[in-house]
Amino acid sequence: MTSDFGFPTPSAALNDVAGFRAPEIPPSSHTVARATHRVLTLRTTTRLELVNLTERVQDAVKAAQVREGLVLVSSMHTTLALMVNEWQEALLEDIKTMLGDVIPAGREYRHNDPSQSDCDRKNAHAHLQATLLGHSLSFGVLGGRLALGQFQAIIAAELDGPRERQVTVQIFSYA
Amino acid sequence: MTSDFGFPTPSAALNDVAGFRAPEIPPSSHTVARATHRVLTLRTTTRLELVNLTERVQDAVKAAQVREGLVLVSSMHTTLALMVNEWQEALLEDIKTMLGDVIPAGREYRHNDPSQSDCDRKNAHAHLQATLLGHSLSFGVLGGRLALGQFQAIIAAELDGPRERQVTVQIFSYA
Amino acid sequence: MTSDFGFPTPSAALNDVAGFRAPEIPPSSHTVARATHRVLTLRTTTRLELVNLTERVQDAVKAAQVREGLVLVSSMHTTLALMVNEWQEALLEDIKTMLGDVIPAGREYRHNDPSQSDCDRKNAHAHLQATLLGHSLSFGVLGGRLALGQFQAIIAAELDGPRERQVTVQIFSYA
Repeated sequence: MTSDFGFPTPSAALNDVAGFRAPEIPPSSHTVARATHRVLTLRTTTRLELVNLTERVQDAVKAAQVREGLVLVSSMHTTLALMVNEWQEALLEDIKTMLGDVIPAGREYRHNDPSQSDCDRKNAHAHLQATLLGHSLSFGVLGGRLALGQFQAIIAAELDGPRERQVTVQIFSYA
Repeated sequence: MTSDFGFPTPSAALNDVAGFRAPEIPPSSHTVARATHRVLTLRTTTRLELVNLTERVQDAVKAAQVREGLVLVSSMHTTLALMVNEWQEALLEDIKTMLGDVIPAGREYRHNDPSQSDCDRKNAHAHLQATLLGHSLSFGVLGGRLALGQFQAIIAAELDGPRERQVTVQIFSYA
Repeated sequence: MTSDFGFPTPSAALNDVAGFRAPEIPPSSHTVARATHRVLTLRTTTRLELVNLTERVQDAVKAAQVREGLVLVSSMHTTLALMVNEWQEALLEDIKTMLGDVIPAGREYRHNDPSQSDCDRKNAHAHLQATLLGHSLSFGVLGGRLALGQFQAIIAAELDGPRERQVTVQIFSYA
């Protein structure tokens, strides 16, 4: 039995979508919250590249055997950003074009000027694009599954590749 | 007794604003963290629409009887984004104008081109705007109340309506 | 022993980077998750200013004696945003320039028009810039340390100063 955004919902929640599901673990239980994590490594191959992390994050949630919880996905880099959107080839090209339209690589930036900066990667636009997209994403886990809508994919945006990158997936379990 | 950003603060925190409030539950207690959730349904009526979710999220926190905790508010859609800002009519119009200025609906996008995409909604701009705003928001719960500043409202941005939308509110309680 | 993005990793995780670290606390333990918080006060001195919060957040994590956990850093204001990027003088200037390029202060905004708005600060651009950057940040705590990459700094963006501002740091501990 699944809700219409694609993850299974306990029957109590279906019976009362607008209300709270009764907590399944009474407050006097000895079961504790726990945290686990996994480090994902990405090897990007071009300067600007979008990488689909959805399955790897879902696998981490499955391996953690979490029923209700929270997942934090974090980029460990200043020019690797994270976003949620649809994984469709045409749209992915539009996202890459948009990033360059909003923050062009070709402008003059202080970070790219050897007289003002010790960085020789000429990657100011990548840093700036990353500030707009964000460095981490949070998701719920409901009924044992990552709470993603039907068309939602977890996407890493490599803004200054190719590089080896690391993304941490930390999972907080409550049941 | 309230702090100047509008939520009640336990007296221990007031006495030592820069320091930590002593945890009220000793580590040996049997009280456990617990997770509950509520699914909010929105029915939007126009293409571009801002919806104030603040009260509905506050109600969910009250119903969960959380004293200290974390609230995760998540859009289950790729063209419904979430943001925090002031709920003022003039500003809401400015936000809508800004979205179209930064990412215009009228440009050519691959996602809108039938030869490259199976999507016939012509909503590429909505996907792109959503990537800049973000798909989820996290808030603290302090002293039993959602930790929002005086002028902060929780706003859903419908970028491709009208539609029926779902937003999950997941609440993690620690006391 | 540290991983290559700069935080210490328990040896079990190093032995199996792609896998889960076994939880150190068995489910039958009495240790509970707990939440603590600290309120940071910032006094900004100019209209547009970037403030490095990294050390203050790291100090809060140290004081909380958290081994594995989650940190939520939240702006309590609609014109103070938060972001993660590199703390380098040249880049900080680029970030400030970019904010004005993407959302110029000098445009006509309804929020700045006395006939439509009761706000006399002429700060519409600040609200709009804040919606793009975001109001909160989440980080993991791994092995007792804030899980930040080598070049990642936690940056508050004052978009409408000078003012006294408050940022809450809430820490959720699982071990």
